[in-house]
Amino acid sequence: MKLEKIKTEGLAHLSYLLTSNGEAAVIDPRRDIDVYLDPARRDGCRITHIFETHRNEDLVSGAGLLAEVTGADVWHGPNPAEPIRYAKTTREGDSYQVGDARIEVLETPGHTYDSLSFILFDQSAQDGPVGVFTGDALFVGDVGRTDFYPGKEREVSGLLYDSLQKLLKLGDHVLLYPAHGAGSVCGSGMADREFSTIGHERRNNPRLGLDRDAFIEAKLAEHHEQPPYFRLMERLNVEGASPTRRYPLPPPKPILKASAEDSQLVDVRGVVDFAGAHIPGSIAIPDDMLAAFAGWVLDPDQAIDLVCRDAAQAERSVLTLERIGYDHVESFRTGMVPVASSGAAFASLTMVGTETVRERLGTGGWMLLDVRGIDEFAAGHIEGATNIYLGHLPSRVAELPRDKSITVMCGSGARATIAASILLRNGFENVDVYLGSWKAWTSSI
Amino acid sequence: MKLEKIKTEGLAHLSYLLTSNGEAAVIDPRRDIDVYLDPARRDGCRITHIFETHRNEDLVSGAGLLAEVTGADVWHGPNPAEPIRYAKTTREGDSYQVGDARIEVLETPGHTYDSLSFILFDQSAQDGPVGVFTGDALFVGDVGRTDFYPGKEREVSGLLYDSLQKLLKLGDHVLLYPAHGAGSVCGSGMADREFSTIGHERRNNPRLGLDRDAFIEAKLAEHHEQPPYFRLMERLNVEGASPTRRYPLPPPKPILKASAEDSQLVDVRGVVDFAGAHIPGSIAIPDDMLAAFAGWVLDPDQAIDLVCRDAAQAERSVLTLERIGYDHVESFRTGMVPVASSGAAFASLTMVGTETVRERLGTGGWMLLDVRGIDEFAAGHIEGATNIYLGHLPSRVAELPRDKSITVMCGSGARATIAASILLRNGFENVDVYLGSWKAWTSSI
Amino acid sequence: MKLEKIKTEGLAHLSYLLTSNGEAAVIDPRRDIDVYLDPARRDGCRITHIFETHRNEDLVSGAGLLAEVTGADVWHGPNPAEPIRYAKTTREGDSYQVGDARIEVLETPGHTYDSLSFILFDQSAQDGPVGVFTGDALFVGDVGRTDFYPGKEREVSGLLYDSLQKLLKLGDHVLLYPAHGAGSVCGSGMADREFSTIGHERRNNPRLGLDRDAFIEAKLAEHHEQPPYFRLMERLNVEGASPTRRYPLPPPKPILKASAEDSQLVDVRGVVDFAGAHIPGSIAIPDDMLAAFAGWVLDPDQAIDLVCRDAAQAERSVLTLERIGYDHVESFRTGMVPVASSGAAFASLTMVGTETVRERLGTGGWMLLDVRGIDEFAAGHIEGATNIYLGHLPSRVAELPRDKSITVMCGSGARATIAASILLRNGFENVDVYLGSWKAWTSSI
Amino acid sequence: MKLEKIKTEGLAHLSYLLTSNGEAAVIDPRRDIDVYLDPARRDGCRITHIFETHRNEDLVSGAGLLAEVTGADVWHGPNPAEPIRYAKTTREGDSYQVGDARIEVLETPGHTYDSLSFILFDQSAQDGPVGVFTGDALFVGDVGRTDFYPGKEREVSGLLYDSLQKLLKLGDHVLLYPAHGAGSVCGSGMADREFSTIGHERRNNPRLGLDRDAFIEAKLAEHHEQPPYFRLMERLNVEGASPTRRYPLPPPKPILKASAEDSQLVDVRGVVDFAGAHIPGSIAIPDDMLAAFAGWVLDPDQAIDLVCRDAAQAERSVLTLERIGYDHVESFRTGMVPVASSGAAFASLTMVGTETVRERLGTGGWMLLDVRGIDEFAAGHIEGATNIYLGHLPSRVAELPRDKSITVMCGSGARATIAASILLRNGFENVDVYLGSWKAWTSSI
Repeated sequence: MKLEKIKTEGLAHLSYLLTSNGEAAVIDPRRDIDVYLDPARRDGCRITHIFETHRNEDLVSGAGLLAEVTGADVWHGPNPAEPIRYAKTTREGDSYQVGDARIEVLETPGHTYDSLSFILFDQSAQDGPVGVFTGDALFVGDVGRTDFYPGKEREVSGLLYDSLQKLLKLGDHVLLYPAHGAGSVCGSGMADREFSTIGHERRNNPRLGLDRDAFIEAKLAEHHEQPPYFRLMERLNVEGASPTRRYPLPPPKPILKASAEDSQLVDVRGVVDFAGAHIPGSIAIPDDMLAAFAGWVLDPDQAIDLVCRDAAQAERSVLTLERIGYDHVESFRTGMVPVASSGAAFASLTMVGTETVRERLGTGGWMLLDVRGIDEFAAGHIEGATNIYLGHLPSRVAELPRDKSITVMCGSGARATIAASILLRNGFENVDVYLGSWKAWTSSI
Repeated sequence: MKLEKIKTEGLAHLSYLLTSNGEAAVIDPRRDIDVYLDPARRDGCRITHIFETHRNEDLVSGAGLLAEVTGADVWHGPNPAEPIRYAKTTREGDSYQVGDARIEVLETPGHTYDSLSFILFDQSAQDGPVGVFTGDALFVGDVGRTDFYPGKEREVSGLLYDSLQKLLKLGDHVLLYPAHGAGSVCGSGMADREFSTIGHERRNNPRLGLDRDAFIEAKLAEHHEQPPYFRLMERLNVEGASPTRRYPLPPPKPILKASAEDSQLVDVRGVVDFAGAHIPGSIAIPDDMLAAFAGWVLDPDQAIDLVCRDAAQAERSVLTLERIGYDHVESFRTGMVPVASSGAAFASLTMVGTETVRERLGTGGWMLLDVRGIDEFAAGHIEGATNIYLGHLPSRVAELPRDKSITVMCGSGARATIAASILLRNGFENVDVYLGSWKAWTSSI
Repeated sequence: MKLEKIKTEGLAHLSYLLTSNGEAAVIDPRRDIDVYLDPARRDGCRITHIFETHRNEDLVSGAGLLAEVTGADVWHGPNPAEPIRYAKTTREGDSYQVGDARIEVLETPGHTYDSLSFILFDQSAQDGPVGVFTGDALFVGDVGRTDFYPGKEREVSGLLYDSLQKLLKLGDHVLLYPAHGAGSVCGSGMADREFSTIGHERRNNPRLGLDRDAFIEAKLAEHHEQPPYFRLMERLNVEGASPTRRYPLPPPKPILKASAEDSQLVDVRGVVDFAGAHIPGSIAIPDDMLAAFAGWVLDPDQAIDLVCRDAAQAERSVLTLERIGYDHVESFRTGMVPVASSGAAFASLTMVGTETVRERLGTGGWMLLDVRGIDEFAAGHIEGATNIYLGHLPSRVAELPRDKSITVMCGSGARATIAASILLRNGFENVDVYLGSWKAWTSSI
Repeated sequence: MKLEKIKTEGLAHLSYLLTSNGEAAVIDPRRDIDVYLDPARRDGCRITHIFETHRNEDLVSGAGLLAEVTGADVWHGPNPAEPIRYAKTTREGDSYQVGDARIEVLETPGHTYDSLSFILFDQSAQDGPVGVFTGDALFVGDVGRTDFYPGKEREVSGLLYDSLQKLLKLGDHVLLYPAHGAGSVCGSGMADREFSTIGHERRNNPRLGLDRDAFIEAKLAEHHEQPPYFRLMERLNVEGASPTRRYPLPPPKPILKASAEDSQLVDVRGVVDFAGAHIPGSIAIPDDMLAAFAGWVLDPDQAIDLVCRDAAQAERSVLTLERIGYDHVESFRTGMVPVASSGAAFASLTMVGTETVRERLGTGGWMLLDVRGIDEFAAGHIEGATNIYLGHLPSRVAELPRDKSITVMCGSGARATIAASILLRNGFENVDVYLGSWKAWTSSI
């Protein structure tokens, strides 16, 4: 019996391939399913079962597609409001055999109404379960969000509390296999550590030490964001997704057409590259931030053109976008030296350091814009800074003064660069970025 | 300006990717087109032109598909009988610009009526062409077959002679880029060397030293085979092919169903593996021989199940079969040790050596069956051997005596093993293979 | 904090790369250390600590080499008899910081006197350890061997019992990271499952339910084998190993020199390939069995020549052999068709099935030789079979009758093929193999 | 017979692997020899011959090393002044058999006294040679440099003229295989096209249309640069090189030590990255420019520390440096965001466009520094610009005014960025770069 964790960077999504004796199960597959097919075949296993812990809102599920390719069934919890078209319904106590492994269903609602956990038993060591796939109910160091049902936050927080008690009852020795790790938008306090047990969580997870009422209050006090693309995910994850591209890349674009006007021109090269030179009007979203921020900033129904370092980065970016349902990348272009050499205009974005920010503090005609999340800002910020979360910036641009110079900051300068590119695209002229940002500020004081 | 030769082993097919200054052309693309898309993107080039030297009969063209993916046009010679649906017609003297390269069309009929050659010029060194893509008109060491139009062999041989004179006129210094290399069924005397020039061919190619009449007589005296799958290729190459599989492999098959009855069970592991142990009734075609012999032995409309060493070999075999239009591989199974361990029956095929064959010579109740081509057999064979070409064996099995023991031979024992598996599947009981075959015989005498 | 398990197939050896915050530790590295250097670099981590749970006897440690390349220290338990030249000594309670992780030493002698376990703590979730690296003290489903100190088996078994109590005290929730998985010669009852916790072992591991006396008796009753190459490993693992080859393969050998006389000619192609055809006198050890059986059959001081399917298999085999200290591979040769074609002699090995074996049972002049381990044989065998363990066969060949025909069997036919090749090399003439062996026998009855 | 061209980007060096019938020859191997060993093994060939066209001055030869690994001999032309330690001497008319190929030696001095060409014959098509390896005598579109023997330029130019006549006599149909392509420092007018024949060169190569006297005068009028590292190459290529690193990368460097003071801190990330943010004092040499410019700027005897985008870029850079004898890379560091986040100081380099440059023209206190080669500058430049070739800048820094602002330009901005980093490191304060440079200037006018 072998269990392979497949991590999707950016989304911090975790899916699992369980293989045993010629059979295999996949838990929470993503859209690019080769990552399950390849190792299953290499180990001589047929994928016979696909399990979904819940209807995901942050990524496109590959469950329906994988079912089509393998002939396996998809098992999903009861979802009467929006029945999952590609799945069969399973309920507490249902049990499935995968080689020498047995998977038993536990209903663990709270994060969503349809949330399930899947308990893993080994036929040849049956005294207690070996592990449990907890989806978005229980993470390493945190528990799931409970803000998805407006007006029902209290009810679903209570449901989650009860679900967690069921999980704790499985026993300290049980291995924990959640659907997300640190960096996911599906929780805020996840540990950077990627492995744990029920027992270690019972001792250390701050949410598990509370009684029911305190737990509910704590959950109600949390602050989460819901990027607009969540709506698209919810729809796609009811309908089932189409395959990712057969031929991954659009053709490279001729250099001359370097204009940001009639498309979403997205510069994925990186923070520092964008600062050095970029096409005026382009939106900076470094490739490793696409999963987290494309859903706030880009329109999934409009064409997207990429500015990349090379074809490999373009291919990576196309795939990352497809994982969250952005299928309309139409071209890519590589490098700024060719653009500038063609005689086309380019722009730079100035990066400033701690010293400069400190000098400017308190001066007039200047604004320090901190685009971190509300909790991060609350936990500590530079006196006088204005906070607008990066995700909200596109819809709140009008609030910003056009007659001031603006320095944008965040944790390190990365999100600030995305924000600055949005400001520049919206016609703001005196914009720079505090590279190092809060980390530099706190290290240098 | 860069020219990449893409060789498809097994078919000995040569296609070409020409890149220059952000643009690219492909000459005679095969069906799995990633092999052109990837390097073009890596070098930052858009594929703007696709050229076909003629309607191929031995492999599925990827021209239509590549056009669809890239937006490029496909250029093909006039083919009034069966207009190529995915192509535009081009004629002698037409000229195309690809970056700094210029491609000029030369009509070179003979092998087929629609055969073109494409002359390559470099804009910055224009005194004489640099190279020429000759398709199946002129090879290194040989010229194209002229047996595709029954009753018109004499006419098309004459056409080919005239076409070759046009090619020779391009000048000695011109590089030669043919569509096939040694091992192809599209010619019989191709050199093992993979590079040449018009001048080197003029001096050394045996077909270029003849006058028109002698040339025609020599062509008429040639002997070529036409595997049944050529019909399928001709149809597909008018219609245009669908893409190869998105997810390359079918699921592995459970071991228990080891039976050859209701499918074409094809054992691609290798000659010696098949001899050691195989599933009774399976057809041996080692993976590196699939391109040459699947088209003689397998039915493209029926399901195919594979016996492989491992998943990688299965994947390779699926792709090789797709290149010649066999799209119905439905499962694969790995290794014979698991089959035997499951309690299923298995069989062996005895390999004998030179000494055994020599002892048997002249004895009664025994037949030595040589499955090499008629020309190979004519060039030298063991006294008393019977010759039936491997490709004809499936339809001529009834001619063989069931009351004799049969030793099968060929050049080395590889084709003989395919033949032996066909005999075994047809109920012959006393069959073995002369491993080493003609090579061993001639080395040991 | 990330923990990567590196599995070495064949040896079923498990080593670990722990990364956290720019630093990394490796536990029990093998000789080909790229497998640690590459992911550490990719994640931007310096390897700062190397831990060895004990002086390994079944594989060459890469600890000294890795220390040399990275500048990290190697930490090893006290080994006064033979101080490890490349390591520093660490003792119970010593503690090491690796990024946000803390490693604490626990002395757990028994398997060897110098055996340590390493307890893993997370700085940010400190209530109880997260996991423990147990070396060869505690496995999933089994505990370590205690037969390495002749005359002291009772003492070290007691030591191991006490060590296991220390491990159990860490708590049910602690993740288990042993140095071996199923298939290792370092234990006999390891589970096929590759993940567990202290708690799951406490409930299910058969050795953990016994009291001290019963435990000791059970350990004394076990039967293990010590291949001769263990002596070489012990020496190398005191001295420290040299790097694996810079250029992994020797040049391919011309076909003509196909003789097994003056070298150890090892045929690694596979069981069924060897049966089909092989070079007379060659020793069959399929590449995936080299780790387990080369140490019984081959002389590490003599040159080794390989017969392979292709260069990739040769490269894999060279590396597998280097991992157990066999550095003298001098050539390789690919395929038997070229050998036979050159006119050289070849031989086959007949594979028989259940029906044939059943027919022969009780007949005279025939011997059924079962080369499985004594425990396997005791657990069930074919009436009338003679048992000599494969590992002992080279030194016990003289016991076998030369006037009988011999059918060799094992679990599936794989070990039997190695055994048969040894008999053939020793001049036995009537030897065949029962393909499927005990698995086929028990499935077919 | 197969001929594989191995191109080393950056150096634009071409080496060749010729394989035929189980044997192989390598012409002009580079230092990282896996690139010859791997394909030779894959095709089942032993490398039996190594040929050097001359003692290279621009890269480290791998001939001695390859000889050691394979047992083949190295054949080199007569070099009485400095006998090549790892080679045997071969002379005009000597002949070598490699499978079915024959290699014949032609002495073609001029570029160096020891320059040889190797004529390639095919045994089975002997009427005229097939190709010729011309080393640095004859390129596509150019001929070799003749400036390596101070005071003897006229003599060696004449020798080269005579050698070229010998090559032309081989015949128009002969394929040309030179040791360099476009971008090499070993010639200035090489074509971007990578394939040609003697005949095509005879018609199009501008140097081949001259008579002896005109040829000599033309060669004397050429202008070439000799980077200081050529001295190192010449020494290493007499002695023979050691292997490249067994474990390719040094450990990553902790972020904190971000200082350029006590080492050669080389930023290989890229032109635009360096502009966006860099460590003060670091030298910008983008990874694809290392081969061309490290030899002008870096000291091979001093330690080198790298700033990279990621570990893969670091690995590539280490190898590129090793190919030109820079073996002392001691660490690498990835990305500027972590550096700035640690609180360390960083700097930017402003990129300006055509409009800015045009505005500044003629203003005081400003200097436009063009670092292109003397020939490029002569062919066209911006009125008022000062020319110092980039390679000479390190030794001519003192000539530049410290009281002016300086805009650096080149062809596209890439070499200008290297130059700007050198000025910054030397304490110049008002330095920026004209991104797009001459290409932008000429496109926008």
